[in-house]
Amino acid sequence: MSEVHAARRSRLRARCASASGTALVVSHPANVRYLAGPASPGAALLLGPGEDDVLLGHGDIGGGEPRDGRSAGEEGLTRSVTDEGTDPALAAVGLAAKAGAETVAVEEHHLTVARHRALTAAVPGIRLTDLEYAVERQRLVKDEDEIAALRVAAEITDRALGELLESILVGRTERHLALELERRLIDHGADGPAFPTSVATGVHSGLADHRPTDRRVEEGDFLSVRLGARFRGYRCQIGRTFVIGTSPEDWQIELYELVFTAQRAAREALAPGTECRAVDAAARGVLAAAGHGEALGPVTGRGVGLEIGEDPRLSPVAMGKLGACVPVTVEPGVHLPGRGGVRIDDTLVVRSRADGGPELLTITTKELLAL
Amino acid sequence: MSEVHAARRSRLRARCASASGTALVVSHPANVRYLAGPASPGAALLLGPGEDDVLLGHGDIGGGEPRDGRSAGEEGLTRSVTDEGTDPALAAVGLAAKAGAETVAVEEHHLTVARHRALTAAVPGIRLTDLEYAVERQRLVKDEDEIAALRVAAEITDRALGELLESILVGRTERHLALELERRLIDHGADGPAFPTSVATGVHSGLADHRPTDRRVEEGDFLSVRLGARFRGYRCQIGRTFVIGTSPEDWQIELYELVFTAQRAAREALAPGTECRAVDAAARGVLAAAGHGEALGPVTGRGVGLEIGEDPRLSPVAMGKLGACVPVTVEPGVHLPGRGGVRIDDTLVVRSRADGGPELLTITTKELLAL
Repeated sequence: MSEVHAARRSRLRARCASASGTALVVSHPANVRYLAGPASPGAALLLGPGEDDVLLGHGDIGGGEPRDGRSAGEEGLTRSVTDEGTDPALAAVGLAAKAGAETVAVEEHHLTVARHRALTAAVPGIRLTDLEYAVERQRLVKDEDEIAALRVAAEITDRALGELLESILVGRTERHLALELERRLIDHGADGPAFPTSVATGVHSGLADHRPTDRRVEEGDFLSVRLGARFRGYRCQIGRTFVIGTSPEDWQIELYELVFTAQRAAREALAPGTECRAVDAAARGVLAAAGHGEALGPVTGRGVGLEIGEDPRLSPVAMGKLGACVPVTVEPGVHLPGRGGVRIDDTLVVRSRADGGPELLTITTKELLAL
Repeated sequence: MSEVHAARRSRLRARCASASGTALVVSHPANVRYLAGPASPGAALLLGPGEDDVLLGHGDIGGGEPRDGRSAGEEGLTRSVTDEGTDPALAAVGLAAKAGAETVAVEEHHLTVARHRALTAAVPGIRLTDLEYAVERQRLVKDEDEIAALRVAAEITDRALGELLESILVGRTERHLALELERRLIDHGADGPAFPTSVATGVHSGLADHRPTDRRVEEGDFLSVRLGARFRGYRCQIGRTFVIGTSPEDWQIELYELVFTAQRAAREALAPGTECRAVDAAARGVLAAAGHGEALGPVTGRGVGLEIGEDPRLSPVAMGKLGACVPVTVEPGVHLPGRGGVRIDDTLVVRSRADGGPELLTITTKELLAL
């Protein structure tokens, strides 16, 4: 992975630090990880103004995770430990100034106003500019290493969910089921959950970000779960809805079919060159035609990678088109207040038709299972 | 709890919004929670310029947690749902301007440069000032409700740790033990862990923030664990070190005695009016006298409450004195590279001698247990 990180840093430098005397300081944790591998919380990365890249942080900067047997030095990255009381971003700007930088681009969407002011005060004469979302833009299209990590994350997630479905569910609480899912994720090799696991039963089912409560699963309930593994920093997401007991009611079957149809339409719309909002419209149109347009959330899918909810967003106001090798979720859902609802989420990678079309990472069945 | 939140807001207004035409916008999550109860991620709180307090956020602003049977309205708090795409802090500043505010104090240590710029651009003519750490300062001394929540958090933590000690430890991995501790925290009623649980065995033992690995517990190891429960938002911390097997070696007994002596010295120094650095010095002096001064971390204790690692800090450079009803950790430790080490952490509430002296919340024994 070391060469991979070095190559990513070179690309970023080529795009953003072409002027001599310009340095870049990256502080957003997912961006630091993308460019330098696992790092401790609060670490900052300095690129330039010379050839050297420096990772700054407190204590064990490497974050304790294995670096595939390579040391930082092998990928042209030096490390510098700062005092506990010193902001690594501030130390990075100071180092850049010492090395002759006149301008330092920082991540204004990550630095707080107070930290930014401290940088200006501590390093007089330096000009701070905004790196903007340059690293996030570079992260949009994933390389095969990243997609491989997402594939493992999805495999772990499918296994954890599959095992849960084999156990007795009636009588257990949402909280307990969520905990068990998270334990199984880790048992199968996840670093941890990609986001807080959501388990929603009965009247809670179908809510987008329901936090598990002490409600118990009952016969006749819809049960909707949303979970994902984090593997080597990469996060995937799956959502499924089941019905508890042997005979789903008609409204449950109809609602499930509807959400399934909407979700499939969006999945099938995923292709390089397609407008993000066209994918959203594919799902949204199906649900709106059935009278569920008003209650729909603003987004029916989003990018995933080192973060859940990266760009792109699949929404009616999204700008831009999908590219190949961009992993996204497709996650429409309907919740009927007082009754419950259905969510079906998948993680897929956008691929051209020549490459076989969208690659489905989360392969747990989407048939309506009666458990 | 409703009246409690309203009273906290009144106090903050009295201190920070006394000028007419001044409104306050609080966005740091722990501060929002302190002033308005559980709220969804990203929520912002507007105080003034009139009598109304408004909590702004997306979707289910209340954060899904029970509010002790009271509605927001009962505590003089109205709620306003913003579009998914709108920053609640931005909406709050807009609302303040509409209500006649000329000046809005925002939390510059929480807002990013980019968000702050967006506020200025979206609400022209408004003057933004810095609320600074006003809410954090108010949070320093805890009321009895807060201390009661910490007491429950500590009780849960002690139970989770106690159960682990009754099980077989040899042959199990750090990761597995950490997971089991976190599961037990939740089984006993925690909202979740207060921070990532650290389990360190053998050569890892005694490291301050060791992340659990696949190393297995072996006969003769030191085993150091650090964990804490989050209960109603309040976080406590305990750290203990054990020896595995029946006969600790001499160096283990000596090192344990030393850290225990240092930790006791700092605990005994806790009193209202004592300089924070005097408490640090009490622990640090013992360890430095034994030749471990160089390797010591910068802090031997810190405040806890809605966050782990609030003010005050117990360190050689800390300014200020302890007050009554301030909960802190006392957490010195020594790690000998290549051998392992000892950490002993407690959470205590500073109390005057008349009130019985420091109140120890984490009561698990500090004898050196051989497991």
